[in-house]
Amino acid sequence: MALALAEAARGLGRTAPNPPVGCVLVRGDKVVGRGFHPRAGDPHAEVFALREAGERARGATAYVTLEPCSHFGRTPPCADALVTAGVGRVVVAALDPNPQVAGRGLARLREAGIPFTVGVGEAEALRQQSGFRSLVTRGRPWVTYKYAVTLDGKVAAAGEANGAVTSAEARAWVMRWRDEADAIAVGIGTVLADDPRLTTRGVEGGRDPRPVIFDSRARTPLSARALRPGTLLVTAPEADTRALEDRGAHVLRVTGLPDALHGLGRLNLSSLLLEGGPTLASALFAAGLIDEVRALIAPKLLGAGLPPLNSPARGMGHAAALRDPHVEPLGPDVLISGLLHDIPRLSAGGDL
Amino acid sequence: MALALAEAARGLGRTAPNPPVGCVLVRGDKVVGRGFHPRAGDPHAEVFALREAGERARGATAYVTLEPCSHFGRTPPCADALVTAGVGRVVVAALDPNPQVAGRGLARLREAGIPFTVGVGEAEALRQQSGFRSLVTRGRPWVTYKYAVTLDGKVAAAGEANGAVTSAEARAWVMRWRDEADAIAVGIGTVLADDPRLTTRGVEGGRDPRPVIFDSRARTPLSARALRPGTLLVTAPEADTRALEDRGAHVLRVTGLPDALHGLGRLNLSSLLLEGGPTLASALFAAGLIDEVRALIAPKLLGAGLPPLNSPARGMGHAAALRDPHVEPLGPDVLISGLLHDIPRLSAGGDL
Repeated sequence: MALALAEAARGLGRTAPNPPVGCVLVRGDKVVGRGFHPRAGDPHAEVFALREAGERARGATAYVTLEPCSHFGRTPPCADALVTAGVGRVVVAALDPNPQVAGRGLARLREAGIPFTVGVGEAEALRQQSGFRSLVTRGRPWVTYKYAVTLDGKVAAAGEANGAVTSAEARAWVMRWRDEADAIAVGIGTVLADDPRLTTRGVEGGRDPRPVIFDSRARTPLSARALRPGTLLVTAPEADTRALEDRGAHVLRVTGLPDALHGLGRLNLSSLLLEGGPTLASALFAAGLIDEVRALIAPKLLGAGLPPLNSPARGMGHAAALRDPHVEPLGPDVLISGLLHDIPRLSAGGDL
Repeated sequence: MALALAEAARGLGRTAPNPPVGCVLVRGDKVVGRGFHPRAGDPHAEVFALREAGERARGATAYVTLEPCSHFGRTPPCADALVTAGVGRVVVAALDPNPQVAGRGLARLREAGIPFTVGVGEAEALRQQSGFRSLVTRGRPWVTYKYAVTLDGKVAAAGEANGAVTSAEARAWVMRWRDEADAIAVGIGTVLADDPRLTTRGVEGGRDPRPVIFDSRARTPLSARALRPGTLLVTAPEADTRALEDRGAHVLRVTGLPDALHGLGRLNLSSLLLEGGPTLASALFAAGLIDEVRALIAPKLLGAGLPPLNSPARGMGHAAALRDPHVEPLGPDVLISGLLHDIPRLSAGGDL
């Protein structure tokens, strides 16, 4: 399954509204086929793996990171393809999150008399599929707040020219996260203060996430580096956006943050990497709309500056605990990450 | 040397103005004597180790965490005692920091024809001796700022009843740090808001550090739990402290923070564990008087509250980097610690 998950990871950020999926076919102790879903409209992971295996698929074990589909979409059902190819056994990491679909691929295997196992490598599969699962079950992207902060909790010096907070190692990770995200969001304050490019740099084969600027009054400068054809501008209904639209910006007029996220979902953006600033992040946090946090902590003290969050006050007893927090050194810095919400899944119980 | 350092650690917080020192005597592959300096006025580590070894000290290797003394203080010189006992070799972790003394103990060994090595385990020895070294070379305690903070950089909710930030595991470490510190400091704001006891709890054989309240106008309530006979009150020269002195408080009247720290040094307090709050910590940080930082980070988000530091603004390029930062999980929390100043040492060069 680790190989199948590695295959799936190759599609991260490229498959929406479909999930990133990987498939590996093993016969005896030999891998006879592998595949991943490269992007919506292309064949599914199982198809690529079966093509590579050819006749060797017969009797093989198929490892798939998501329950094989059972319905005719843009491609024929993968569960049928596995049956037709004569695989001997199927191992699935995670069930399909769509309650209308979940279990049907497995039912198809059961009908054909092919034994299967579910839940192997599920935690990692859920992480890979968080965007897809959010889109299917909630109609909005999975929102990950990334921030780089000093040990005394400052993301930037107030009103000062700002240098980088973290190391080159930490910034390289941020670039990988950008490469894997469908969209990247900042608030207008960050655009005006830092004029970020919001591009993926230094990642081999990388591509840029779609820039999303939360800018209720459409104050983004025409010279903003993040403004390019396709950049999404999230504004209030009455904002005057003509000049920005002339530059290629797409405008999403919304009446609040939940409305904004559902608008992004309708555009098939399944994962949103939120890179600041504190005003936008605080509003999303206060609204319960941040799903995951990745804090890059630099071992230095600034003394004064802006915090990563500045929402209305709550007592320490009301702090939101990260689920399954993860700590990892990145060069001289430390990454602490974790979830504020569970990744949507379905119980493996029921009629299986 | 690891054994000698473990011996030395038994004296942490008990030996000021003397250093915590450990000594282990090894003959062949057998430990024949061990000792540590328990407190000022008691014999030095070498004396205990030599007593235990008796005749077996002859030809043994002595591991000592600090250069053996060469002068008559309250006890006779340890360098002479090692020579007299006939040890075959001496291994020293760190040189004496006092420029008038450094090297003399070793010179005594050289005169006696006993070979020695210096610098084995020096980093850990310097850490153990940071208070002693600060007192000897700067006339003030080594100041360690400990704070517990949420992942979004909040030490407390503003104006709210506060729960604990970190876990029981993290708090147990704080209690060990209190046990090892000569003194523990808080600002008057923390006394008024939280009324802390500032005692060591749950540490076997533990003792309390001396409470120090930075309280320029002597506003500490007579009912404050940290107020007990011997509690130090650091005030402005004109503060009216009569009622507090009646309760046993000792008053240190100072004209500024450097003056305050030197006052603590004159009282032989070699290590000060600063436990907040942000106002006192920020003033000490801005004055360059914090030597070491221990940040306990809880993987949760509060949204709003007080930061650990709130000094005058500086650009990110002026952030103070921790030297040799150390990362360690403590239960669900993470400790990030490091130094802002080097621990005073002497070069092993010169006439050695």
